[in-house]
Amino acid sequence: MSSLSTPERFFASDNASPVHPDIISALLAANSGHALSYGDDDVTRSAEEAFRNLLGPSAQPFFVYNGTAANVLGLESVLRPYNAIICATVAHINEDECGAPERHVGAKLLTVRTPDGRLTVPLIEHFLEDVGNEHRSQPGAVSITQATEVGTVYTPHQVKELADFCHTHGMYLHMDGARLANAAVSLGTEIRSFTVDAGVDILSFGGTKNGLMFGEAVVFFRPEPAEQFRYIRKQGMQLASKMRYIACQFDAYLRGGIWRANAEHSNRMARMLADSVEGIEGVSLAYPVESNGVFARIPTRIAEPLRELHPFYDWEKEPSAQRAGALGAGPPGADAQGAGSQDSGGGEDATVARWMASFDTTEEDVERFVADLKRLLAATPVQA
Amino acid sequence: MSSLSTPERFFASDNASPVHPDIISALLAANSGHALSYGDDDVTRSAEEAFRNLLGPSAQPFFVYNGTAANVLGLESVLRPYNAIICATVAHINEDECGAPERHVGAKLLTVRTPDGRLTVPLIEHFLEDVGNEHRSQPGAVSITQATEVGTVYTPHQVKELADFCHTHGMYLHMDGARLANAAVSLGTEIRSFTVDAGVDILSFGGTKNGLMFGEAVVFFRPEPAEQFRYIRKQGMQLASKMRYIACQFDAYLRGGIWRANAEHSNRMARMLADSVEGIEGVSLAYPVESNGVFARIPTRIAEPLRELHPFYDWEKEPSAQRAGALGAGPPGADAQGAGSQDSGGGEDATVARWMASFDTTEEDVERFVADLKRLLAATPVQA
Amino acid sequence: MSSLSTPERFFASDNASPVHPDIISALLAANSGHALSYGDDDVTRSAEEAFRNLLGPSAQPFFVYNGTAANVLGLESVLRPYNAIICATVAHINEDECGAPERHVGAKLLTVRTPDGRLTVPLIEHFLEDVGNEHRSQPGAVSITQATEVGTVYTPHQVKELADFCHTHGMYLHMDGARLANAAVSLGTEIRSFTVDAGVDILSFGGTKNGLMFGEAVVFFRPEPAEQFRYIRKQGMQLASKMRYIACQFDAYLRGGIWRANAEHSNRMARMLADSVEGIEGVSLAYPVESNGVFARIPTRIAEPLRELHPFYDWEKEPSAQRAGALGAGPPGADAQGAGSQDSGGGEDATVARWMASFDTTEEDVERFVADLKRLLAATPVQA
Amino acid sequence: MSSLSTPERFFASDNASPVHPDIISALLAANSGHALSYGDDDVTRSAEEAFRNLLGPSAQPFFVYNGTAANVLGLESVLRPYNAIICATVAHINEDECGAPERHVGAKLLTVRTPDGRLTVPLIEHFLEDVGNEHRSQPGAVSITQATEVGTVYTPHQVKELADFCHTHGMYLHMDGARLANAAVSLGTEIRSFTVDAGVDILSFGGTKNGLMFGEAVVFFRPEPAEQFRYIRKQGMQLASKMRYIACQFDAYLRGGIWRANAEHSNRMARMLADSVEGIEGVSLAYPVESNGVFARIPTRIAEPLRELHPFYDWEKEPSAQRAGALGAGPPGADAQGAGSQDSGGGEDATVARWMASFDTTEEDVERFVADLKRLLAATPVQA
Repeated sequence: MSSLSTPERFFASDNASPVHPDIISALLAANSGHALSYGDDDVTRSAEEAFRNLLGPSAQPFFVYNGTAANVLGLESVLRPYNAIICATVAHINEDECGAPERHVGAKLLTVRTPDGRLTVPLIEHFLEDVGNEHRSQPGAVSITQATEVGTVYTPHQVKELADFCHTHGMYLHMDGARLANAAVSLGTEIRSFTVDAGVDILSFGGTKNGLMFGEAVVFFRPEPAEQFRYIRKQGMQLASKMRYIACQFDAYLRGGIWRANAEHSNRMARMLADSVEGIEGVSLAYPVESNGVFARIPTRIAEPLRELHPFYDWEKEPSAQRAGALGAGPPGADAQGAGSQDSGGGEDATVARWMASFDTTEEDVERFVADLKRLLAATPVQA
Repeated sequence: MSSLSTPERFFASDNASPVHPDIISALLAANSGHALSYGDDDVTRSAEEAFRNLLGPSAQPFFVYNGTAANVLGLESVLRPYNAIICATVAHINEDECGAPERHVGAKLLTVRTPDGRLTVPLIEHFLEDVGNEHRSQPGAVSITQATEVGTVYTPHQVKELADFCHTHGMYLHMDGARLANAAVSLGTEIRSFTVDAGVDILSFGGTKNGLMFGEAVVFFRPEPAEQFRYIRKQGMQLASKMRYIACQFDAYLRGGIWRANAEHSNRMARMLADSVEGIEGVSLAYPVESNGVFARIPTRIAEPLRELHPFYDWEKEPSAQRAGALGAGPPGADAQGAGSQDSGGGEDATVARWMASFDTTEEDVERFVADLKRLLAATPVQA
Repeated sequence: MSSLSTPERFFASDNASPVHPDIISALLAANSGHALSYGDDDVTRSAEEAFRNLLGPSAQPFFVYNGTAANVLGLESVLRPYNAIICATVAHINEDECGAPERHVGAKLLTVRTPDGRLTVPLIEHFLEDVGNEHRSQPGAVSITQATEVGTVYTPHQVKELADFCHTHGMYLHMDGARLANAAVSLGTEIRSFTVDAGVDILSFGGTKNGLMFGEAVVFFRPEPAEQFRYIRKQGMQLASKMRYIACQFDAYLRGGIWRANAEHSNRMARMLADSVEGIEGVSLAYPVESNGVFARIPTRIAEPLRELHPFYDWEKEPSAQRAGALGAGPPGADAQGAGSQDSGGGEDATVARWMASFDTTEEDVERFVADLKRLLAATPVQA
Repeated sequence: MSSLSTPERFFASDNASPVHPDIISALLAANSGHALSYGDDDVTRSAEEAFRNLLGPSAQPFFVYNGTAANVLGLESVLRPYNAIICATVAHINEDECGAPERHVGAKLLTVRTPDGRLTVPLIEHFLEDVGNEHRSQPGAVSITQATEVGTVYTPHQVKELADFCHTHGMYLHMDGARLANAAVSLGTEIRSFTVDAGVDILSFGGTKNGLMFGEAVVFFRPEPAEQFRYIRKQGMQLASKMRYIACQFDAYLRGGIWRANAEHSNRMARMLADSVEGIEGVSLAYPVESNGVFARIPTRIAEPLRELHPFYDWEKEPSAQRAGALGAGPPGADAQGAGSQDSGGGEDATVARWMASFDTTEEDVERFVADLKRLLAATPVQA
């Protein structure tokens, strides 16, 4: 992506944002004297306690370097290689981890298209047909993302329905919580209400997208997988020697309420951006804006000019023929994500753009972005 | 499956058939004196030569125990763990190997729904969009099945189009030839015309479904993967110590023309069965009958009674609502195989049954089966 | 290995022998009509019962194709990837499976040199030091071979000591029983006395080296691993479609007492060979002859000439300097197997040869071999 | 380890040290505005250039989170699962990565005992005997550690001899450079002299033990593995989203000469500690002190009291019987590291302690440690 004329802040990803000043402070505070390696230190113990304060006494947190590792190793800790993982087609573990779950767990992913990124029991219960069939991977876990990859959020009740389904059928419920804080703020509830209280068994607890420098936590709410996770983490190349530098970030993040403040801000900025573009002719929202991401359908003709000014990623292409007609007109057989049905106007080719707000996004950033978008819409000629 | 009243022969699978008498003779002939283990024997060398006679001098065959191993280890020999394998949703490697490709190759399978089991370039070329994206598994091979899992057959030209696509984009073309002989007979051509001559790089050469006791061959048409396959086979738990007992079967199978005679017979029996049921009211063919399998849509009410008399497997259920209406009425998001569109009559629930003919199926077997089917159709009341 | 002048039978391996006539008869008897695939047939059920008759009601047998698969998949069924397997340096799983345990279980092998192929508790208990250390693979199983790779045999008491050690420390005891029958005959006991009764948890039950065509059984004596083995076997590429052709061999092997008769014969032939060579000047036994293998130290100068007449494999080279002097004179640091201390005479370079007797070895075979050996010893000049 | 009375700095590990102030400054400087994720940013490009400045134009660096990942993924990028890795028994990849190489590469480790942590061609060339034997893992790489796990250092010439051996036999040479800077300072040469110029193919370039917060680089000197490493890194769960925070550390580390200054200091502190304890009765050095580690044999009676005051890890236990007598008196068969032969005095049980100096170790730290050691030696009664 060109970065010649890149502004100081943009909407390409919440990973593009820097480290929150309070996290920096925590890192500086931790940087004193020697501490035993691999987590045998007071900072790590404090951060673990902070997790139990937030999520209750059953929570057993383990720090790893990033979200892919949290997902993969968390799932590995409860699955056998012949187990399958049920997830949405758009799930990060399916689309954005270069096959790491297949490679490191050995598992097949059983994917299902969803209208809005959320799994439901009716969407997945047909996978039970394979149970007991030795020729098929055996469903062992359901993995959901909170907030989802398209910015929607599961309610505690929706999570609980999936958890009940899992536990009835001998499966685990895993939650990829890369944007857990944004979901909590969106729901106006505590994190525990839609995790441990709703029956989640393994939680990938994110932080990097919400102001941390690096680090993620795998939180177990059952004793068995936790007992063996120390070995899985080390073998999985994810045991940090200078553990205190992950732990201190989470300690501050949780105890200082940074998680909530940052998520409130980025959610609010996404809301502002969504509200600003929703009324623009030719632009429509592809998914409900429930966290810090805005998925907007824009005419393809302005995608590149806009990207020149403000880096962002395309989520999906929608040729006009496809949008106009039946599903069958798309790439035949492709398991494409069926984005919402609102039109971007006319028969133009459209692009669903993904714009992510960060903890440091300002109202001016939003205003400048929207102004450029409007200007380009007016200035760029419609494609024949 | 109940086997109380099972007839001597049935249509459940070509794996249910016994060993052809000429193969038995070959086994008895090989059973004399000592022979060095692991393939360092004259019988094995003769069988390898028989493959080169059939497929040309570039063919390098390696014997393994079964088809799953041939597919998985053949693919492993050309792929890196971050590679993906493009295949049909109905592919044996996707649906019937309990996740072995994911587990042993490390690869993600990129699946695509097909109208008739056959991949085409337009069906798969959208997977190229992921090439170069480090977050995505990198397409490294296309795997096709000849004859397909639903009994259709690729022409040499269709294979060549896929091979050209693969080679243009740095991918390998793998062919799962569990029913290779049936395809050759169906096409009226030599096997080499739609394998090596059409650009196939790795071939799983089946025999067990066509009269062998056990054993399959992986045939490479390129030198590089062949060089390392000895180690991959041993590490893959597929190096037979008493190799001569696989080799002698293939030697007789190829040199004696057993492959062709058996496939001609089983194809003819499938054709006879298809012709016999096609005219029956309430029964229709779900896929063209191009090899030794008949996929017939029958009213669900007779599926169990018929199975009591003649064991067979269901391929697919089709609730009447689904068949009547739009695709969206099925299990939402499920990547189900869209069987052909002919109706089995009325609004009844239908079942697509899979009936496989074998080298030892007799005309009387077909007649008895069809008579029982007709009798049950008349005798079983239509569901409300 | 040259096979130009190869006699009809030789001592290269018990894998070089053909299939016993009674096993051939069983294969012919099974070859009638159709049978459901993958073990859902009467022959397989009968063979499973035969295993329970032999080993008691807790025995749960599963058929696979070969011994490497039996070992690897049996161990996979009880281990997690961070577990280590304790075994002898000479163990088949360590030296002869091309890294299959590492690859398919993910496990590290913790090897220990043994004086005679047998593990003992004092030899392995130091591995407990790693228990609980997250930086180290966690010992999860001990694997022993019965009879060992050098032909020695564990008594029931010796197995029980290892089993008690394993169970005290949360480990499983696995037995590679490629030559189980030979061990039973050698001990003059029933197989169950040194397997299930002695505490073995997972047993690889061999047959191919003792008269079968192909096939091996994994026998579990605990319910948990057995429950998931169906999936592990299928994913492990070891589910035979025409299962009856493995099962019928084991059915005859166990019910017909072939296992015992064949092992009695091959053990007796090994004893005869050992007795014949023991008195020869320049030849000595490297290990006690307790089953069907003879490991004899011979002057290196006659190894090749003898091999020209009778194919066999070298087990080990012993330069004269090494044998005469300190351990340090060998390849520095190599984890070589310390063969027994008897000298082959003089300061000559010696080779430890492995000669395996088979169920079809005749007294004349032994006599001819010994005569050739004596002749070559006399005729071949001593190396300078 | 108790940390109640722990001093501010100790000798347990160079991982116990904090982050160097200049690295902190670099992190603060990088923490401004948005930057594209996954390394598509100017800081990362600058750090990559810094590597090329140091190591020449063939150097292709990739950042990962830690040393285990650098070793495992670097090796994975050049090996096939049937390849073996030759290394010292004491190698970090063998003893301290919980089986990660076996698990993630699939490889067997072929280990060899060394007198001082260093491999030599004569120590490893016997592994060539397995080349071409399909039953054995095929040697594919030699992995050496610089400085070694026991603090010794390979000269450029010693590396080159191993590289020539590797390249002659189709193997890669991998260097685990967790303490590369210490080795360079010890040798008084540039890093390139004993890496790229000596024939190293893959280099794990460490920093965390020498003042960084986290992060390691895999540096390839050949184009092929580098081309595919992007995918291996992502699939290996090691692609940092906020890459700039690893890159900025290395940029400062290399451009600012921090690597050299820190290593000079820690090497000097180790030298001072070694010199201080060498003359003490009852204490002796187990290995030459060539970098920042001191391996000292001390009476076991003072190990715990000393550890109470100054946390450190035992490297090895040496019962008096073992030290007095032959090698065979130790744990039979154990592949123990034969530490040097100097006696710690008397027939007392000894412990080889590992003391690591860090970039922030002070002369006062050394003096206090030595004083405590002397005091305890005098005060603690000799064991019976």
